Amino acid sequence: MGVDGTSDETPPGGPPLRRETSRLLSFSDGVFAIIITLLVLDLQPPRVERGQLLHALIEQWPAYLAYVSSYLYVAVNWLNHRAAFNRVENSGKALQWYNLGVLFSTALLPFATSVVSQAMRDGDQADQRTGVVVYGLVGVLVSVSWLGLYHYLTRHHDLLDQTVPRRFFPAERARAAIGLLGYALAILVGYLVNPLFALAIFLLLPIFYSLTSSGLYELRRLRHPHG
Amino acid sequence: MGVDGTSDETPPGGPPLRRETSRLLSFSDGVFAIIITLLVLDLQPPRVERGQLLHALIEQWPAYLAYVSSYLYVAVNWLNHRAAFNRVENSGKALQWYNLGVLFSTALLPFATSVVSQAMRDGDQADQRTGVVVYGLVGVLVSVSWLGLYHYLTRHHDLLDQTVPRRFFPAERARAAIGLLGYALAILVGYLVNPLFALAIFLLLPIFYSLTSSGLYELRRLRHPHG
Amino acid sequence: MGVDGTSDETPPGGPPLRRETSRLLSFSDGVFAIIITLLVLDLQPPRVERGQLLHALIEQWPAYLAYVSSYLYVAVNWLNHRAAFNRVENSGKALQWYNLGVLFSTALLPFATSVVSQAMRDGDQADQRTGVVVYGLVGVLVSVSWLGLYHYLTRHHDLLDQTVPRRFFPAERARAAIGLLGYALAILVGYLVNPLFALAIFLLLPIFYSLTSSGLYELRRLRHPHG
Amino acid sequence: MGVDGTSDETPPGGPPLRRETSRLLSFSDGVFAIIITLLVLDLQPPRVERGQLLHALIEQWPAYLAYVSSYLYVAVNWLNHRAAFNRVENSGKALQWYNLGVLFSTALLPFATSVVSQAMRDGDQADQRTGVVVYGLVGVLVSVSWLGLYHYLTRHHDLLDQTVPRRFFPAERARAAIGLLGYALAILVGYLVNPLFALAIFLLLPIFYSLTSSGLYELRRLRHPHG
Repeated sequence: MGVDGTSDETPPGGPPLRRETSRLLSFSDGVFAIIITLLVLDLQPPRVERGQLLHALIEQWPAYLAYVSSYLYVAVNWLNHRAAFNRVENSGKALQWYNLGVLFSTALLPFATSVVSQAMRDGDQADQRTGVVVYGLVGVLVSVSWLGLYHYLTRHHDLLDQTVPRRFFPAERARAAIGLLGYALAILVGYLVNPLFALAIFLLLPIFYSLTSSGLYELRRLRHPHG
Repeated sequence: MGVDGTSDETPPGGPPLRRETSRLLSFSDGVFAIIITLLVLDLQPPRVERGQLLHALIEQWPAYLAYVSSYLYVAVNWLNHRAAFNRVENSGKALQWYNLGVLFSTALLPFATSVVSQAMRDGDQADQRTGVVVYGLVGVLVSVSWLGLYHYLTRHHDLLDQTVPRRFFPAERARAAIGLLGYALAILVGYLVNPLFALAIFLLLPIFYSLTSSGLYELRRLRHPHG
Repeated sequence: MGVDGTSDETPPGGPPLRRETSRLLSFSDGVFAIIITLLVLDLQPPRVERGQLLHALIEQWPAYLAYVSSYLYVAVNWLNHRAAFNRVENSGKALQWYNLGVLFSTALLPFATSVVSQAMRDGDQADQRTGVVVYGLVGVLVSVSWLGLYHYLTRHHDLLDQTVPRRFFPAERARAAIGLLGYALAILVGYLVNPLFALAIFLLLPIFYSLTSSGLYELRRLRHPHG
Repeated sequence: MGVDGTSDETPPGGPPLRRETSRLLSFSDGVFAIIITLLVLDLQPPRVERGQLLHALIEQWPAYLAYVSSYLYVAVNWLNHRAAFNRVENSGKALQWYNLGVLFSTALLPFATSVVSQAMRDGDQADQRTGVVVYGLVGVLVSVSWLGLYHYLTRHHDLLDQTVPRRFFPAERARAAIGLLGYALAILVGYLVNPLFALAIFLLLPIFYSLTSSGLYELRRLRHPHG
């Protein structure tokens, strides 16, 4: 990292050696692609007595529900990543680590998915509460990592493409905060009321995210057209 | 997504920030590469008594057949994806989700492959019927996701490279519809007649797809040379 | 595919839509990267009684040997792939399938590695013979797939970069044929004499490949400087 | 490889066929992305009696600690790889193999992580010592592979971008040597004193690496401004 803390890619007295974010993008695309595909490893043919396969496959429904929720969630994360980094011109060590934080938290989703789907299928009420809390905590962690990334980009407008409006990343940050509250709410509802309600929120949150993608920003732009 | 619904990449008053589909392509290539390679995880050395390895490896033949079928199927899906997106100039939120739908359904193939190969090896007739129905349903789902994507591209010619003939994506859509019928037929035949017949159809369908790739379009072009 | 069979990327009357081989390369790089990394999944901490870990880890030596051999082999395959496709300007449906054939056979290596390392550790002499035959057959299959690809490129010089000498791909084809013979020899020696000898050949063959990479071609060029 | 040993990409009498390191980068990004994501496969929902999930998840704490340490370590390796190859203009067969050596040793991390986390959870004192020795040896191996790569690049300044200062790679080499000593120290401390101390060093070393990234170089540059 240079002394000025903005980039480790500009050698003293020389031009940038290469497009700054190209490897960050290819590495991140790889990680998202693997995470979204690893989810399917949690779907396994049940080991059952001969003749019981259909029944056992149907009994796995929590695994399918968890798979769909997590697939949507990772997909939304990837779309968010794309929307954010399409607007970033330069990185630097700090942004690299914020990005690695997002990848770290997202990479925990297959584990959380596996825990919650196994708990819903085989566990008692206490296990199911544990399962939704684990999944919810990973959701909170993912939201926090995005919050950090968006906050950093809000405060480092110089790293962005010049055409990006000042209000874009604050709006994204607000969306991440809403996600954080959503997952926190799911933990509470799942723990105090019913784990199934938490599952429903886990499914609804990525749908909300998808629908409002850039939506909050559009809304604000309509209100403050010169922002 | 912009108010006009065509793209979220053009900031107000600015040019496109970057080649629109580059990350969609790199993410999709990653997912296809992982799916096609995960299939091999279903091939495992059998855990048997000493001296029984050869016999046990031969008894795994349904796993090898399922592996070859699914490898061909994922390969054909990737070739289709390449043929389609080589012709796409711009994406947008809707196209992103159609693409994520294709990746979602294709990602279920290793699971379906595992179910059918285990059912053929260890299950009774009922399990085998269940196995081919599961695989067939995933095939139907994959076909439906392509149908949606091709239909969307047929109706949004403005997203395409200008040199793409108007009849290209309708022809692809027809091919997807034939695939849908093929997998539905395999389910019926496998359920009512014999699961082995369904396996044969599962192997033949990707071969058909591969041979007719762009073939239907060529055929139509010969008939309507000014299309 | 066009009527002329060379490429499906040139729409009638239009220029090539995009760099022809870019997605073939990114997909193939993904598959090779996954195969080479999946190999490590065969290395697992042994499940043993407390206090037996060190002993059990040492007893796994065939797994380490198989891992190193297969890592080298996949690495050499990737280097060969890079050397070949750095010289290819245009693809087409046939070349796509030759490439998918190479990826198919290479993707079987983690399975074969797992079979041979388990057989060496837990099996009797018959199992060990089976193991080396399975690994050797996959090696033969990989060699055959390269033979096909090199033969195709030898006969389709028009797909290549103009600066590629006519003798390059015939020399590569000869190298693939030597590999085929090497793996066939390993099967024979492993089956008739001693499976350990086969393991040694499996380790030596990628080393040979690596050392002679472009070596045969250099040799021929020295003899026929105007080739 | 050419007779001069620097590159296999320049055919006799022709220009370089393509950007030299592009496939090395995309393959390496793929491998790092898979390694960092495979780590999560070691986190599995514990198979326990109904009602014991929470307790069992908490008992897995060594797996979480090992996961975090290894995630940081792979992340730092990727950042190092990016920092190094952003400065490389040309490769060649030798550099390819040094790079494959780095990928080989890094790919062993998920295995070592699995061994150490299982030993900390289920093993006795002897197993735990074995576990930290295995992890430490992989850390030594990773450091040695970087040492080799940095040493090679120090001696082949002609492969680098012209703006790279002469002192950059010697400083990186020194950092790799410190890492080697760190992991060797962890082995000693873990074996002779307490495995938990070794775990702490495994967590601290990537943090040290991250903080000093390019730091030693900056330090030297301040002292020798004309280097």
